[in-house]
Amino acid sequence: MATILLLHGPNLNLLGTREPQVYGSTTLTNINKMVIERGKELGVEVQPFQSNSEGALIDKLHEARTWANGVIFNPGAYTHTSIALRDAITATGLLVVEVHLSNIHAREEFRHKSMLAPVCLGQICGFGWRSYLLGLDALVGSMV
Amino acid sequence: MATILLLHGPNLNLLGTREPQVYGSTTLTNINKMVIERGKELGVEVQPFQSNSEGALIDKLHEARTWANGVIFNPGAYTHTSIALRDAITATGLLVVEVHLSNIHAREEFRHKSMLAPVCLGQICGFGWRSYLLGLDALVGSMV
Amino acid sequence: MATILLLHGPNLNLLGTREPQVYGSTTLTNINKMVIERGKELGVEVQPFQSNSEGALIDKLHEARTWANGVIFNPGAYTHTSIALRDAITATGLLVVEVHLSNIHAREEFRHKSMLAPVCLGQICGFGWRSYLLGLDALVGSMV
Amino acid sequence: MATILLLHGPNLNLLGTREPQVYGSTTLTNINKMVIERGKELGVEVQPFQSNSEGALIDKLHEARTWANGVIFNPGAYTHTSIALRDAITATGLLVVEVHLSNIHAREEFRHKSMLAPVCLGQICGFGWRSYLLGLDALVGSMV
Amino acid sequence: MATILLLHGPNLNLLGTREPQVYGSTTLTNINKMVIERGKELGVEVQPFQSNSEGALIDKLHEARTWANGVIFNPGAYTHTSIALRDAITATGLLVVEVHLSNIHAREEFRHKSMLAPVCLGQICGFGWRSYLLGLDALVGSMV
Amino acid sequence: MATILLLHGPNLNLLGTREPQVYGSTTLTNINKMVIERGKELGVEVQPFQSNSEGALIDKLHEARTWANGVIFNPGAYTHTSIALRDAITATGLLVVEVHLSNIHAREEFRHKSMLAPVCLGQICGFGWRSYLLGLDALVGSMV
Amino acid sequence: MATILLLHGPNLNLLGTREPQVYGSTTLTNINKMVIERGKELGVEVQPFQSNSEGALIDKLHEARTWANGVIFNPGAYTHTSIALRDAITATGLLVVEVHLSNIHAREEFRHKSMLAPVCLGQICGFGWRSYLLGLDALVGSMV
Amino acid sequence: MATILLLHGPNLNLLGTREPQVYGSTTLTNINKMVIERGKELGVEVQPFQSNSEGALIDKLHEARTWANGVIFNPGAYTHTSIALRDAITATGLLVVEVHLSNIHAREEFRHKSMLAPVCLGQICGFGWRSYLLGLDALVGSMV
Amino acid sequence: MATILLLHGPNLNLLGTREPQVYGSTTLTNINKMVIERGKELGVEVQPFQSNSEGALIDKLHEARTWANGVIFNPGAYTHTSIALRDAITATGLLVVEVHLSNIHAREEFRHKSMLAPVCLGQICGFGWRSYLLGLDALVGSMV
Amino acid sequence: MATILLLHGPNLNLLGTREPQVYGSTTLTNINKMVIERGKELGVEVQPFQSNSEGALIDKLHEARTWANGVIFNPGAYTHTSIALRDAITATGLLVVEVHLSNIHAREEFRHKSMLAPVCLGQICGFGWRSYLLGLDALVGSMV
Amino acid sequence: MATILLLHGPNLNLLGTREPQVYGSTTLTNINKMVIERGKELGVEVQPFQSNSEGALIDKLHEARTWANGVIFNPGAYTHTSIALRDAITATGLLVVEVHLSNIHAREEFRHKSMLAPVCLGQICGFGWRSYLLGLDALVGSMV
Amino acid sequence: MATILLLHGPNLNLLGTREPQVYGSTTLTNINKMVIERGKELGVEVQPFQSNSEGALIDKLHEARTWANGVIFNPGAYTHTSIALRDAITATGLLVVEVHLSNIHAREEFRHKSMLAPVCLGQICGFGWRSYLLGLDALVGSMV
Repeated sequence: MATILLLHGPNLNLLGTREPQVYGSTTLTNINKMVIERGKELGVEVQPFQSNSEGALIDKLHEARTWANGVIFNPGAYTHTSIALRDAITATGLLVVEVHLSNIHAREEFRHKSMLAPVCLGQICGFGWRSYLLGLDALVGSMV
Repeated sequence: MATILLLHGPNLNLLGTREPQVYGSTTLTNINKMVIERGKELGVEVQPFQSNSEGALIDKLHEARTWANGVIFNPGAYTHTSIALRDAITATGLLVVEVHLSNIHAREEFRHKSMLAPVCLGQICGFGWRSYLLGLDALVGSMV
Repeated sequence: MATILLLHGPNLNLLGTREPQVYGSTTLTNINKMVIERGKELGVEVQPFQSNSEGALIDKLHEARTWANGVIFNPGAYTHTSIALRDAITATGLLVVEVHLSNIHAREEFRHKSMLAPVCLGQICGFGWRSYLLGLDALVGSMV
Repeated sequence: MATILLLHGPNLNLLGTREPQVYGSTTLTNINKMVIERGKELGVEVQPFQSNSEGALIDKLHEARTWANGVIFNPGAYTHTSIALRDAITATGLLVVEVHLSNIHAREEFRHKSMLAPVCLGQICGFGWRSYLLGLDALVGSMV
Repeated sequence: MATILLLHGPNLNLLGTREPQVYGSTTLTNINKMVIERGKELGVEVQPFQSNSEGALIDKLHEARTWANGVIFNPGAYTHTSIALRDAITATGLLVVEVHLSNIHAREEFRHKSMLAPVCLGQICGFGWRSYLLGLDALVGSMV
Repeated sequence: MATILLLHGPNLNLLGTREPQVYGSTTLTNINKMVIERGKELGVEVQPFQSNSEGALIDKLHEARTWANGVIFNPGAYTHTSIALRDAITATGLLVVEVHLSNIHAREEFRHKSMLAPVCLGQICGFGWRSYLLGLDALVGSMV
Repeated sequence: MATILLLHGPNLNLLGTREPQVYGSTTLTNINKMVIERGKELGVEVQPFQSNSEGALIDKLHEARTWANGVIFNPGAYTHTSIALRDAITATGLLVVEVHLSNIHAREEFRHKSMLAPVCLGQICGFGWRSYLLGLDALVGSMV
Repeated sequence: MATILLLHGPNLNLLGTREPQVYGSTTLTNINKMVIERGKELGVEVQPFQSNSEGALIDKLHEARTWANGVIFNPGAYTHTSIALRDAITATGLLVVEVHLSNIHAREEFRHKSMLAPVCLGQICGFGWRSYLLGLDALVGSMV
Repeated sequence: MATILLLHGPNLNLLGTREPQVYGSTTLTNINKMVIERGKELGVEVQPFQSNSEGALIDKLHEARTWANGVIFNPGAYTHTSIALRDAITATGLLVVEVHLSNIHAREEFRHKSMLAPVCLGQICGFGWRSYLLGLDALVGSMV
Repeated sequence: MATILLLHGPNLNLLGTREPQVYGSTTLTNINKMVIERGKELGVEVQPFQSNSEGALIDKLHEARTWANGVIFNPGAYTHTSIALRDAITATGLLVVEVHLSNIHAREEFRHKSMLAPVCLGQICGFGWRSYLLGLDALVGSMV
Repeated sequence: MATILLLHGPNLNLLGTREPQVYGSTTLTNINKMVIERGKELGVEVQPFQSNSEGALIDKLHEARTWANGVIFNPGAYTHTSIALRDAITATGLLVVEVHLSNIHAREEFRHKSMLAPVCLGQICGFGWRSYLLGLDALVGSMV
Repeated sequence: MATILLLHGPNLNLLGTREPQVYGSTTLTNINKMVIERGKELGVEVQPFQSNSEGALIDKLHEARTWANGVIFNPGAYTHTSIALRDAITATGLLVVEVHLSNIHAREEFRHKSMLAPVCLGQICGFGWRSYLLGLDALVGSMV
């Protein structure tokens, strides 16, 4: 059975825990549950991990190269600045799908460029928590 | 029953009709069939249209505002240059999901920027024909 | 009697037909009527034309060089991208006044630059439908 | 009866007083007369003022906020450099129409950008002394 | 016998029909005749086509992939803006020589860059109608 | 007893005199009073001056070099454009603290850069009228 | 009683511990004491924290959202590069005052831009350890 | 007898009056005397004027067009920012030589570009007070 | 009989002498022979010259102004950097056709811009040794 | 006896452990051994450390200032983004030699600029594991 | 007796020898004579040298460091591109005055920047052959 | 026995011959001796060459392709401007190590970019004369 790393970058741990009237009540725990559930339907195991530390995210990618068949990655703000995460993806040879809750291309100029996208399989953004589920579908579809 | 416009921009009519050993044998007709089929599963009707003309694509969006509930749009090369298509999306008020076969962020610098993304719901790129199916899922999911 | 081409670019056909509470109820037909009416007062005939196609707008300018004494042109989104329309103005030698409903200089950065203005007589923007009437006054005044 | 400030920026005092074969014999006094005359037809009083000093122009705008219903402003070279005049327009809340004798978009690159346009109602340029009359028409039309 | 598409972009239909004292009396018809004649000498058939529409030019390139052995292409103003035409050249796999009447590198800055040149065999510019004949020689020479 | 020049640039004379519901009722006179009062607590005399003229502000700095021990300076819009004020600070050798009512780094791009900051002791911005009091504290603290 | 997080970014732990003849003998411990002391005078409790890790700083901000009423933040070098810290400030909704020991606008070009300032209340820089005390005054003043 | 305006921009009034050990004891008065003296040798009358106000400098140039045969102009910091002074030179048609005490090309990047040089006869910089005498020689030599 | 200078810039002396399987066996000597031969057919004498030194190329252009009727010039890498060669072309008044073996617009960004093209008659690139023959045809055709 | 910190940045822990046919079988452990061995020959002790975390690398540099006489630093991807590491080098006053396995100047544009090089003794790149040995030679040679 | 190197860069050897009706009949020989003559009046010996080769100009500067007290240098087109000449000036420690016949700041954008000016005493441009005489006066005046 | 070309660019001939208190007494002759000596230890013959002429350096590289097994190259100022030297390295296929005495990345912005590095094996800079010895070690190590 294939295993998927579900990787969340900085600040995503706060999802849904404040201002629910604004951001909705979907917490990161909810998202993880939904993706794991969806994984079961697709026959893959999903292992979630979140960190606010760039180094910890790199460490996780390194570790995952021995057991993961692919990665769903929401790199948060590191999307736009981290060459180190880009190199980690290249160095581990992992198949990565980049996802974002918001439509990053509709926000501030500095969020339009992704340092990671060029080494990912593809990018999905703008669909809220659905971006994750679409990302899993895309990843599993591409792994076949 | 909701109706979806499936809009293809310039050069996409050539898909699969040449160099099948390179691009695969998936033609635009195949893609249209798959998306229509998927639409049936999701309970929506999909109406495909392709043109190489920026003006014709604008005309189609205008026309669709009276009957479409949403749009799956692969704007091809117009993605990066057409303010007119951007204005058409804004002016019609249509809910649009931007899709691309290739990962545009991994290609030439001039393909990284989308003039349309800021007025679309979201962007999906890099998954070949799957990008379309994911786009339909995303659109229908967001319409609920 | 002098004849004036009243040329409208992409998306202007939608004016006034939707969200009247936002954009007002002035349709393109209304604007055309007002300009034609104003033309009668000034002793000139006004011939309106709209297209969403860059090519069709170029064709119209070419055709008009044999019968028009001047042009009121709202190039819409093509203002900022079309070198071909710029060349058409130069090639036909027509006297053109560029008009815009909105104040393009108060909008997104990419709308500040006009590729056409350098080959037009002048530019009027920001006065809604009045921009057209002012454009006609400016053109006829300059033709004397 | 509405009152309009007719404001002229640097170097405009020299209009028409030299090289009449090049610039015509229309002096600033002539332009002021024409605009005042036109104002009478439109039922508004026009009060002209010119200065070469950025500070004096700001002072005038400040003073005018107590008596003017709108401003016709040719900021001359300050158009492209003065954030202070921009702030003065915003701070006074005056309705301002920016006018230029020449088509600034057809001149040197550094004249294409207006620091003031984003806080004005609109911009009219390229029609010589007619720009002022058109500006008055535009302003009065918008004040109704 | 090899067949060559002779493709002309926007505004080239006006060649020679106005201001003959400036641009000379060589019309597009003359140029087509000269190139066809030259083609006969070189043993190739030349089929000319002109359009002001980007979409129509793309359509023509698509169509030509079934019958043309090469293309002489003067893309006019679309040279500098059209990624769609660039993609059409790549997608059709046609051998294209880019030609220009004027020396585009000696004109405005925005005419120096060609979006198409990177996917063409080569570029010839600055020799008036001779650019076309040189382009045909270059193309036929390269086809051998 | 040390003496401090409290210098206000363009448009600051309008503070509090209009739209009190928006900007509050704190006028420049109020601010001057508060800073003078605070100066008394700190044992320094504060002399306020405001002008909309860049030249007058330079003159004031020149004059102050004979009697002032330091300057609290809100240069308003001249912050971003005036090399002449920068040179005046350098030439007079005065110790200057730059203050702003608003957080200039959170506003338009062109307000992020200060031409004066590199020759000032420091910069304080974003705290409304408190910026002035903080500036005085900072200046007096640094003078000890 | 209000509680304030006093947050120090990378390299600030080294303050005062080396080259005292250059940087003075004020250590981070000294600064913390002074700010805590000042807090007592103002009736607020101050809790200091320093880390060289971007992730740890984000974690601290997240944690502080449950107990802190505001933050004095010297982000050190992360000021200019960290979108993740910017997002952390936005996500936690904390009231933050950005402070710097040196006048960052008088140093290298790459230190002029703050990625954080746009989401902070204001910025104070250039006054050495006094910047922290001024920051606390500003924060407490704004919290009233 | 020819008359020359000797025009000094902002901050030049402070020359030599402070830090004589640094800048030398040459005051603006000294420079004026030297240039007047040199003018006598060359048979021209020199009339000096200094102002810190951009507007006053423009006024002076306007006034001088009726009596001056040429101008020696050290525009100080306005060199790099004033389009209004540039327009004043063009509008008055005066023959202007731009001079600078320091070598502006060896200083900060923002001092390398002169907005005025393109409309002056030439530029002389870097020779201290000698720049003025060289400027007079150059001007008188060119007037012959 | 007209005489043509055939000028080759840096590194072109190495053509064909190494890696023949890659670059073909066409040496510079071969190219010179072909161009001389072609010159005979066209009734012009061709005099070849190659140097790796920018100064020597300038010297040659200077010398040629007394005997050459035109120049075929492949400036190699100096194309993109040499203002001195540009000035030499302007100063000698020679009619120059710029040629390149490779399609410089399809190579590295820094090879896209030609400093020389603006002062040449035209540019031909991308056709290998044929570029030279086409250049000669273009030059002789233009000299008639 | 001098002691040297051998510092490795992100992703370098993966060296040689995967795709040996591509990257060779030299692991980080091998490199550390070689550098330690070489250190013995040169009479210095080498202490290796690797981390994927920017903060941990800063911490290590801080700690090393009490015991290290110099540093061999391969900052990996942080080379191009980390101002914090730059400040750490400056703050600790350590003598640092920057080394890279690959020739960073021959890779993507964003890898050409090093934020750290300006505060290092020198940079060595492009020689694989030899870069480290050369770095040690350079450091020890400079320490004499 | 002081000795001055009078150094002329590329293309200056052509001065006055062609198109005398355009450029005047002043040849480089004339200029050299005038400067030598002027040198005699000032009590210095002037030794002229011209080359089109960057290397030869560097060689000359190197040689001159043993006998020249200063240099009048018109670097022609190398002004804008040669870091090697800049380094030669710095390395030789020679006192250099940069002169230009034309006003380089009034010409093409790429002629506005001088790579040499930052290491020269000053710059004089725009006065034709008089620039050289003014340069000698400036140099000798500064040498006293 | 392998032979190495030791190539020095512009101004390096002046090393050590002036201001020994500043640059030390190491002349180019000394450096050449040290590198030759080191070569003997490594079993390679070293042949030094220096020129201030870009063309002569290109000629030398061309000549060396028949006898050299590698090159140690300090291109001096040509590092940053010479595409011709870059092409020479590519065209000759020589293995080149780029060395610099100073740390070019710590100097002026225009010295940070090397046009040659992308076609060299690697770059070593900042270690004074040791850079050459390290370069030789690197080259010989890579040749094994």
